Amino acid sequence: MRERVRLIIESRRFQQAIIGVILINAATLGVETSPSAVARYGDLLHFVDHCALYVFVVELLAKVYVYRLRFLLDPWNVFDTFIITISFLPTASGLSVLRAVRVLRTLRLISVVPSLRRVVSALLNAVPGMASIVLLLGLVLYVAAVMGTKLYGTAAPDYFGDLPKSLFSLFQVMTGDAWSDIARPLMETHSSAWLYFVVFVLICTFVVLNLFIAVVVNAMEEENREERRDEQAVPSDEQAVLSEVAALREEIQSLRQLLADRVPS
Amino acid sequence: MRERVRLIIESRRFQQAIIGVILINAATLGVETSPSAVARYGDLLHFVDHCALYVFVVELLAKVYVYRLRFLLDPWNVFDTFIITISFLPTASGLSVLRAVRVLRTLRLISVVPSLRRVVSALLNAVPGMASIVLLLGLVLYVAAVMGTKLYGTAAPDYFGDLPKSLFSLFQVMTGDAWSDIARPLMETHSSAWLYFVVFVLICTFVVLNLFIAVVVNAMEEENREERRDEQAVPSDEQAVLSEVAALREEIQSLRQLLADRVPS
Amino acid sequence: MRERVRLIIESRRFQQAIIGVILINAATLGVETSPSAVARYGDLLHFVDHCALYVFVVELLAKVYVYRLRFLLDPWNVFDTFIITISFLPTASGLSVLRAVRVLRTLRLISVVPSLRRVVSALLNAVPGMASIVLLLGLVLYVAAVMGTKLYGTAAPDYFGDLPKSLFSLFQVMTGDAWSDIARPLMETHSSAWLYFVVFVLICTFVVLNLFIAVVVNAMEEENREERRDEQAVPSDEQAVLSEVAALREEIQSLRQLLADRVPS
Amino acid sequence: MRERVRLIIESRRFQQAIIGVILINAATLGVETSPSAVARYGDLLHFVDHCALYVFVVELLAKVYVYRLRFLLDPWNVFDTFIITISFLPTASGLSVLRAVRVLRTLRLISVVPSLRRVVSALLNAVPGMASIVLLLGLVLYVAAVMGTKLYGTAAPDYFGDLPKSLFSLFQVMTGDAWSDIARPLMETHSSAWLYFVVFVLICTFVVLNLFIAVVVNAMEEENREERRDEQAVPSDEQAVLSEVAALREEIQSLRQLLADRVPS
Repeated sequence: MRERVRLIIESRRFQQAIIGVILINAATLGVETSPSAVARYGDLLHFVDHCALYVFVVELLAKVYVYRLRFLLDPWNVFDTFIITISFLPTASGLSVLRAVRVLRTLRLISVVPSLRRVVSALLNAVPGMASIVLLLGLVLYVAAVMGTKLYGTAAPDYFGDLPKSLFSLFQVMTGDAWSDIARPLMETHSSAWLYFVVFVLICTFVVLNLFIAVVVNAMEEENREERRDEQAVPSDEQAVLSEVAALREEIQSLRQLLADRVPS
Repeated sequence: MRERVRLIIESRRFQQAIIGVILINAATLGVETSPSAVARYGDLLHFVDHCALYVFVVELLAKVYVYRLRFLLDPWNVFDTFIITISFLPTASGLSVLRAVRVLRTLRLISVVPSLRRVVSALLNAVPGMASIVLLLGLVLYVAAVMGTKLYGTAAPDYFGDLPKSLFSLFQVMTGDAWSDIARPLMETHSSAWLYFVVFVLICTFVVLNLFIAVVVNAMEEENREERRDEQAVPSDEQAVLSEVAALREEIQSLRQLLADRVPS
Repeated sequence: MRERVRLIIESRRFQQAIIGVILINAATLGVETSPSAVARYGDLLHFVDHCALYVFVVELLAKVYVYRLRFLLDPWNVFDTFIITISFLPTASGLSVLRAVRVLRTLRLISVVPSLRRVVSALLNAVPGMASIVLLLGLVLYVAAVMGTKLYGTAAPDYFGDLPKSLFSLFQVMTGDAWSDIARPLMETHSSAWLYFVVFVLICTFVVLNLFIAVVVNAMEEENREERRDEQAVPSDEQAVLSEVAALREEIQSLRQLLADRVPS
Repeated sequence: MRERVRLIIESRRFQQAIIGVILINAATLGVETSPSAVARYGDLLHFVDHCALYVFVVELLAKVYVYRLRFLLDPWNVFDTFIITISFLPTASGLSVLRAVRVLRTLRLISVVPSLRRVVSALLNAVPGMASIVLLLGLVLYVAAVMGTKLYGTAAPDYFGDLPKSLFSLFQVMTGDAWSDIARPLMETHSSAWLYFVVFVLICTFVVLNLFIAVVVNAMEEENREERRDEQAVPSDEQAVLSEVAALREEIQSLRQLLADRVPS
């Protein structure tokens, strides 16, 4: 029985059916954002939504039944469980945030479609190599935010009124969006504010540039390592030379034997 | 007859003439955007435009006559046919959109100039390698748009009023253009909106960064593969060693023969 | 005694304690930006701040005691000393700038956490390779600023009123932020201003692009050099061939000896 | 006499003196942008400016005297001559544009400082490899500008009123600056304008991305080619193997000779 369930949930048909349910559910969640559509087809949309949710629950339970504890070893299963658990909250409380969060269910597409799964795994693999630089960027952001709040907190309360506001403003500056709109008005009262912004922009650009390079070099290195592994697997010309030389040595050995046998000492 | 037409349309002169017609047509289409120029030289411009169009039609028909069914095997021919077919629509209906679309004819330059053709082919070859990441980006955009519409639809109807508006706003945020102009007013009513935007900006930046890296690494890999093919084609030093060793072995063989002949066993 | 102090300050425990003090101090400096928190816990915050400062001073003195003159050879020690010396200024003068500067103390995290230290060292190592391009960028910026001031100084006094203003405006254009907001109003009075901006944007983009490439290629080269060093360190197949051939030669030598001994001349 | 002049103008001292004159001249040109400084030190500034100009003229004449026709073979000499010729125009006509253009003289720093010269040469070398993609980008820009003028010329006369305005607006969109400020008002009257902008942004981003990659891959290839040249120049292990094998062959030959001599046939 357990084996038969395993064969079913691991079959390609089953997975395609799940992908279909996710896509239909994604569409209904999208249509639900239109009040006029909800007014007309609201009941149908909710019905489809509930059906999809129960399909996902049944799928998860089947997986738990088949894989038992190994179920938790696959992080994608944990991801699916988390997303479906979230989906059960809104029906209880009805908060708009929780209702909005239901659409995260569409992200299950990542765990079901293999190519998306690979891409996301690759993205997550790149994270550890970036950790130090991200930490450095966070440190620079924090120090600049504390300085900004102290220096410009009273002059530009909208942008530097308190620490969270400063952090948001500096994040905005870091993405290069409209930083002059923040800097120019400040420079009218604090003429040296240009130094603060120019230094911050330069440091951020430089660190982000290097973050980028670290990731590229990492990817290249990975690539190179794989290539070299390939090269070592294939018997190379050099190994051919080696075996030729070994054969040569045997030849000479037999020649010496011949000499020893025929020429009397 | 057919062979002679083939020689003509494949001659360099003919292709240069076609390039000339495309450039002249591009110029007249550009001049046509000025109402004062149309008022004065309108008839001339239309005459040149029609001539160019008929030249293109004759060229296409000649190609169909020469290549027959093989005509459809070259995607650039399909591209040319499509662009010229579009050009015939406006004269019939006269809609401004269709009239504007006539300028696409200038894109025929891509199919005629070999270097442009190569560049566009290279660009299109890069597309399959990006498919998964673009799909992921689309998924993130869709999920974020549905969430944005539900959460901020009433607070910022201009930006998040319905799903298409949200998609456009998030595309704008993704390109990094004036995203703070969308986020800051929202944050006055929804104080936690910063989380939505910061997370979206970070995810998009990260995914786009990796999209970029995927393309670079792909291009490098391609490069490396070609190089290695080159290396294998050229007879290397190693192969010289191999043939030297083989010669050595023959030498030893003949030496052993000599010994066997001269020294009595 | 000196040896015992050295063992203490080089122990992992001690370093973790220092990291702890820096983090606590960073938190209090952050909390200090909130006037309400200062009103309530001001004394406590100042007390913690002073304690942290004295811990840092004692740490530095201990290092001076242990390493003597070698203390100055490590640039990170100079960095730490500089940051802590700055922290002593505000208590004397009380200027808001100097008070804001105290948060730079948090940057000590870089000199204490090894991974951050490595990242910053790597960043600084990339600087010399960029020097020429940065110099070129500076030259372009200066020339464009002088031209901008002379051409548009009276038409747009806010952006090009004097040399520093022009430099700041062009830095803004270079980061790609809202450059059309500067260019469009100017183009109403100076219709050829578009040329100035388009040329400047194109040159900057091109030079920055190449700055970027220089850094990437540098990083790759470095990578390659290390790889090749690795390859040379490991005894390769080729060296095996060489020693095989040497053994072969000895074999032949002994064979000739045998021949000389046994066959009378 | 000619030889002595050559030695002087090629000496390091002379070149450092010229760099000094350029820097002093750059400073006076910068100071000249301030009306108050001109009012006070105007005569001095003009005197220094004229002196510098005459120094440059004398330097150029000396070079012409020394190198004769070869003078024109070095493009940097042509560049210098061009820049200095420009400087003579303003004193005659007095137009503000020509006065502003005098600061281009500072760019002579590029032709005098070797490291800047190398960087600019490298930048210019990258240009041919980008030609096709830049041409493609220009084609896309032109086609989009003609379409934009026809479609939105009446709805947004400021941005798409005529072909030059459209080209400038699309260049702005291409740099990613405030494109939503152009698109959003248009979308109120032309609801399908989003398609025009999104497609244009996507194509430009994609083509620019590939332009970038082409340059990186080019730089890498160049790098690799140089490396391989280095590898071939250095006598490798493989060549050692080859000569070892050749020695071995001689050894065997002499052994055969010995055998032929001593052992009677």
